This record gives sequence, structure tokens and C-alpha cells, in this order.
Amino acid sequence: MKPGLTAVGVGPGDPEMITLRGVRFIREADVIIAPKAETGGDSIAGRIVAEYVDLECQELIEQVYPMRLDQQGLAAYWSQAARQVAALVAQGKRVVFVTLGDPMLYSTFLYLQQHLRELAPEVFVEVVSGLSSIHAAAALAGVPLALADDRLAVVPATFEDDRLRQTLQDFDTVVLMKVARVFTRVRALLAELGLKGQAVYVRQVGLPGQQVFHDLDLVGEEDRHYLSMIIVRKTKS
Amino acid sequence: MKPGLTAVGVGPGDPEMITLRGVRFIREADVIIAPKAETGGDSIAGRIVAEYVDLECQELIEQVYPMRLDQQGLAAYWSQAARQVAALVAQGKRVVFVTLGDPMLYSTFLYLQQHLRELAPEVFVEVVSGLSSIHAAAALAGVPLALADDRLAVVPATFEDDRLRQTLQDFDTVVLMKVARVFTRVRALLAELGLKGQAVYVRQVGLPGQQVFHDLDLVGEEDRHYLSMIIVRKTKS
Repeated sequence: MKPGLTAVGVGPGDPEMITLRGVRFIREADVIIAPKAETGGDSIAGRIVAEYVDLECQELIEQVYPMRLDQQGLAAYWSQAARQVAALVAQGKRVVFVTLGDPMLYSTFLYLQQHLRELAPEVFVEVVSGLSSIHAAAALAGVPLALADDRLAVVPATFEDDRLRQTLQDFDTVVLMKVARVFTRVRALLAELGLKGQAVYVRQVGLPGQQVFHDLDLVGEEDRHYLSMIIVRKTKS
Repeated sequence: MKPGLTAVGVGPGDPEMITLRGVRFIREADVIIAPKAETGGDSIAGRIVAEYVDLECQELIEQVYPMRLDQQGLAAYWSQAARQVAALVAQGKRVVFVTLGDPMLYSTFLYLQQHLRELAPEVFVEVVSGLSSIHAAAALAGVPLALADDRLAVVPATFEDDRLRQTLQDFDTVVLMKVARVFTRVRALLAELGLKGQAVYVRQVGLPGQQVFHDLDLVGEEDRHYLSMIIVRKTKS
């Protein structure tokens, strides 16, 4: 490891789902930055890495991530985070930024990277892949994502119905992300397309609240968690 | 671990890309089955797990995987493999079947599972997720798979041009798998759509021959490896 920023994906939340490389990079870092929701509670990613951090010779920074900022507020937040990283790297530090899941898929690291490219393009950046919650959810639900010549789509469920309908018609497996707030609408769409029986709802995979619903009608209001998805598998397998 | 079959994804090939859980399940198994290409050479997955296997008290079976069988031949092969697993489990064994990447995404485990369901539905089956080569390739290439409301598609490049064209138009990121044999055709299609400059070719990610080409015109005949993909990222990020 040389001075620079390494994004380390720690997997979906279960401490055992981190890779050996992820553990090594955390152990070798000078500074570990773990994002944390501002609503109190601890950082899930921070908790996973805590057992590998030696506070005698490493620094652990819990970065409070704002949940309700507008575009401008978010840009200011990430600019500031990028400047902090750049300053640490300029001091010769090896900085690790930990994220849940994989840094390359729907992760906050990607915003940090954008701002870092703009503000401090000289900073060396690399990525240590982590297990995405999509793979862990498929394993937990027992639903293949793809085999042979299958086509897989991963889309936010918040898209308009027409585009979701098209995707659900065209692909063998569709993973609908960010499903909590639009659950009722999406369930109705799946029913209309005759796909409700082939849909599985997975909430908080890898976390203490993890649960699989093979029947969407059993998903109550209280089960509609932010960290949830629906996997629709059309092909029998 | 109880008697049964556990598919363990070992990641794309780099021994450090296995998860802690993957290592634990291999250590706790009675029998480890590692697929191996019949063209000689050793099993990549088998090599990764070898350091965790204690041959004094565990059995390692290298299962030779046939490369050129027709449908019927493949069905016979997987039936036989399923029967072998069922017999071991009937003896009370905890069997681990190791696969490259993730067992739920384009893995041979899914065929084994199909046959096991048919021939020995009583066998307990579970899956320990592994890092997919898609995530490792995105990390190596420095190309995000998706952020914010992006849509991601993973499709075999062997699909007909019209469907590929549609997918390339509809999605923010498209991962084209199995690209080696159709590379020239796919490159021409990307050029036609004005997407050649946004496409990255990654071969053998996580393996000794790993290489990234940010210019598809530099990919020679000898670089068209079976384990390769093209990531097309349309959105700037």
C-alpha cells in the first residue's frame, strides 16, 4: 500500500462477508474512514472493521453522513470529505474509506471519488471489491441471478411503471433496488404482469434484521426497510 | 454446518478475494469438491482452497468438468455429480462445492443444484456468496457499475445485435459477458452506437493474465480470453 485512498467494500453487513484482502488493507492503513448515519447509532461498516483497527497506531474517523441534504448540500459535503482525504494523503497517509457492499455499485464512495478527481486529481485511488448485497440476497433467497445465456437487470424500483414493465418483460432476472417507498405500486405491477409469484422480497440481508419473503402479500408496512430489494426470477431453475 | 451441500464462491481467482465465511466453510467441511477443466492443468478454485484443506481429515475431490458435451451429455454429467453429492450427504458428510466467482451468477453450481433438486430433494443446500468477477473487473478498470438511479444490465455478448443494441440504449451500464468469440462483432456494434470510447475490455480479472484495455482497438486476437468481459459505461462519473 502506498499513500492514497483505497475504497474497501466490507460486504452487506455480516462481519464474515468481508474478503481477506479487505481485512489486509484495513490492517495496513494509517487512517480508516467509516461513514455513519447522522441519526445516531454506530456505523455498520465501522463496526465490521473495528476488530481489525489498532487504535494505538491507526486513526479511525467516523464520518457522519447527512441523510436529508439537497443537491447543493450534498456537493458541499462531499467536497469537504474529498479535501479531508486529500490533506491526509498529502501527509503521506494511506487512507481506507470503508463502504457496505461493493464500492462500485450504488456506494457513497463513488461521490467521494467524483469530488476527489475534481479537487485533487493527483491522489492515487484504488478499489478493493466487496460482496454486494444483491449476491447475498440471491443466496439467502435461493434464487439464481443468471445461468447459461440469461440476462440480468439491476434497476431502482423508483423508475416509472412503463420502463419497469419493459425491463421485467425483457430480462430473465430483475433486481429491484430501493423498493421500500414504492413497494405497493411495484407489487401491483408485478401482479399485473403475472410475476408476483416469482418475486422474492429480501430485507436487510447480512444484518440482524435480515428476512426473506417468498410471498409479497406477507410483507407488512414495518418490513419495508430502506435496505431491501425484490428479486424477480422469470426463468425456472 | 450440518450434513448437506454448501456452494462456496471463492471470488474471481485471486486467493485474497475469498470471504472469511468461505474460508471457514472450507475448513469445516468433510469433503471439498473442486471443478477442474478436462484439458489438464489444475483447478483454479481448487488451488485457492488448497491452503485451507487438511488432507489428514478432509477429502478433496477434483471433479473433471467436460468442456465439449452436448445437452444430453451435460445432463448425464450433472446427474452423476448430483448422485455423488447425495451419496456423501447420506453418509452424514458436510460437502462443499467450490466455484469461481459467485455461485448464483453464471456458475456451474446452478446445474448441480437443478439435478440435485430432482434426484435428491432431501439434500440440504446452502450458498456462501463469493465476489463476482464483474465487481472485480469494475474495480480494476475504475468504472462504476451504477450510482444514484442508474440502471445496470448484465448480458451475454452472444445475443443478437438487435437485442444488444436495445440494451445498450436503455441502460447506464452494460456488462457484456462471454465476449471472446464475438469480440469483433461487438466492437463494431459499439462503434456504430458511438459507445466504443466508453467501453473497457477486461480479461482474466483476478488471475495471473489479468489485463485492462481502455481502447478496444488494442485488444489482439491473443487477448480474447474465455474469461473476459466488456463494461460499457454511458453515464459520465
